[in-house]
Amino acid sequence: MPAAFQDLYAEPFSHCYGCGRNNPHGHRLKSYWDETHESSTIAHFTPGTQYSGGVPDHVYGGLIASLLDCHGTASATAFIYRARGREMDEPGTPMRCVTASLKVDFLRPTPLGIELAISATLRAIEGRKVRVDLALCAAGELCARGEMLAVAIEDSGPRATPPTSR
Amino acid sequence: MPAAFQDLYAEPFSHCYGCGRNNPHGHRLKSYWDETHESSTIAHFTPGTQYSGGVPDHVYGGLIASLLDCHGTASATAFIYRARGREMDEPGTPMRCVTASLKVDFLRPTPLGIELAISATLRAIEGRKVRVDLALCAAGELCARGEMLAVAIEDSGPRATPPTSR
Repeated sequence: MPAAFQDLYAEPFSHCYGCGRNNPHGHRLKSYWDETHESSTIAHFTPGTQYSGGVPDHVYGGLIASLLDCHGTASATAFIYRARGREMDEPGTPMRCVTASLKVDFLRPTPLGIELAISATLRAIEGRKVRVDLALCAAGELCARGEMLAVAIEDSGPRATPPTSR
Repeated sequence: MPAAFQDLYAEPFSHCYGCGRNNPHGHRLKSYWDETHESSTIAHFTPGTQYSGGVPDHVYGGLIASLLDCHGTASATAFIYRARGREMDEPGTPMRCVTASLKVDFLRPTPLGIELAISATLRAIEGRKVRVDLALCAAGELCARGEMLAVAIEDSGPRATPPTSR
């Protein structure tokens, strides 16, 4: 299995509560290319029951935004690497993306207790700006939609050591 | 001290990980009227060090979105109660607001380890729709800005029992 995008972030940028491989307390979201859709990516996550919304059987909105944010920036990073003909685990100055803005439309309650699928599709790359369309589905039903503007920055930190056994 | 808005939610809607008084695992964000600004509200929150972003000394974006979301819906609820001449702890069918959409602009990194101030200002009420402007500041500096469209719904659950000693 290929490494998740987040497992290829440079070490100093691997501490995110949402998706950092070096944050022992966090969600450790993992994002991958969606091999069935060109220019699309996918992540899966099953929230624990503590992440309820106002009512106990729905996911709270903050987690939905978090999942879209972390998957969105990871995907934006992967998109811009690919657009520049680079691989995320190659030598050279590493890039990553940060969120400039994120809009989330909450379309219906997201059920708690089942696996969620978070997907991202590249809309456009304009210089360092990456525009990404996001979706969060539960049992095949679209529950939330997102639009992200991410900005690529070049890291000066040391490279990640790509995982060797996953 | 007056009760926080979230402490006046009806019981079935008090389980939010971000702000529910009956979620023992969550953030339990508390929102209040800002007595110094008309039609504005305020909440304060100091994230634990585990809530780092990619780099260890910044807050991760998902938590910022979560704080804006929970404070935004609580404030929208307070705004619509006030607009209708009602009190949140009065008898009658309780109302609450849910997020239809939330846009977050991440203006600069939010430092981790200090208290954050999250504020909301009413922009407009159009029927059941409540438009709220949001801001998140650290040490007086604006780090993130939000725009929320919330929708008021009437709850059929039992009333909250207002806290008697806070």
